[in-house]
Amino acid sequence: MRIAVLGAGVVGQRLAAKLREVGHDIQVGTRTPRDDATSYAEATAGAELILNATNGDGSLEALAAAGAENLAGKVLIDASNPLDFTRGRPPGLSVSNFDSLGEQIQRAHPDAKVIKALNTVNNEVMVEPSLVPGNHVLFVCGNDEAAKAQVVELLGSFGWPAERVIDLGDITSARGTEMYLPLWLRLVGALGTPRLNISVEQA
Amino acid sequence: MRIAVLGAGVVGQRLAAKLREVGHDIQVGTRTPRDDATSYAEATAGAELILNATNGDGSLEALAAAGAENLAGKVLIDASNPLDFTRGRPPGLSVSNFDSLGEQIQRAHPDAKVIKALNTVNNEVMVEPSLVPGNHVLFVCGNDEAAKAQVVELLGSFGWPAERVIDLGDITSARGTEMYLPLWLRLVGALGTPRLNISVEQA
Repeated sequence: MRIAVLGAGVVGQRLAAKLREVGHDIQVGTRTPRDDATSYAEATAGAELILNATNGDGSLEALAAAGAENLAGKVLIDASNPLDFTRGRPPGLSVSNFDSLGEQIQRAHPDAKVIKALNTVNNEVMVEPSLVPGNHVLFVCGNDEAAKAQVVELLGSFGWPAERVIDLGDITSARGTEMYLPLWLRLVGALGTPRLNISVEQA
Repeated sequence: MRIAVLGAGVVGQRLAAKLREVGHDIQVGTRTPRDDATSYAEATAGAELILNATNGDGSLEALAAAGAENLAGKVLIDASNPLDFTRGRPPGLSVSNFDSLGEQIQRAHPDAKVIKALNTVNNEVMVEPSLVPGNHVLFVCGNDEAAKAQVVELLGSFGWPAERVIDLGDITSARGTEMYLPLWLRLVGALGTPRLNISVEQA
């Protein structure tokens, strides 16, 4: 499949490499095009699916630069987090509680099928879940059921079995996965490694 | 030990019953004293340890009513969450990101030893962790190491082994455990039960 990965930082590069490895045709989009990355608009124009791996504070701008016409009708996986470093570390979130970055992106691009996913783990764990033992999980949030199913399948190709991907509901549930980040950051500090994840146990 | 449980709602009653079961002398404090619950000040005056199980939106007021002199020098377990229902359900938080209710309580009562704990699970799971299978965890956050150790011991008497209680650091880490609530609420909705909890897996 032709996939545009937006963001040429560590997360974008990691996801692009994995997507190539599992057989997809990848264009990386970035703000300042270079040898291995084109503009956001060029990357998305011919893509069937888009993966937002830009920094959360630049995501809305990057997607606006891609152009609504290049996102319309397409599955848009949002793996970003609205981290706010303006008041030091650990960061807070620039949007939370009654809104989320996932929802902001969906509102800005009502014709895209936004699925929040992958934002709850470190980039290494995203593409190699076996780095962490146990039945740890990912979450998907979004309004379009077929798009969600397609994302679950793509995550399967990364090594995430479908039974370890929890469907939290519509895109408003992105509030939950984004607001988990402050706990994740504290866990990284307490355990001394970003190679961690949670599993969910139920009665 | 003489323990004051503040809050005569479901959470307070559940915790008071468990604490009595494991041998403690319990006084329940509430806003409007009745047969089985005294005022916040009366409950805390003779207590050696205090457990805040009031609603998050009333916790600061309840603790002010208890009186700083009745909290000074004592371990104060804060099990509450600053849930904000003013904009409907699921709720957001009334304080988050760069502050937390745990920190607000510690600032309001600098001589108390505030330990954030128990706020990440349903009241039934708090006192009977075996309701949920697996090595699911609790978190403790606070500035006083001896107080934290005492809380870990008390949680042990509830059935939480010490190796399943993760020390996240000082009281600022309460931001993480409080901000987890929106994810917990979505999980309750997605899985259809509040009898759930997370475990943390690491490489």
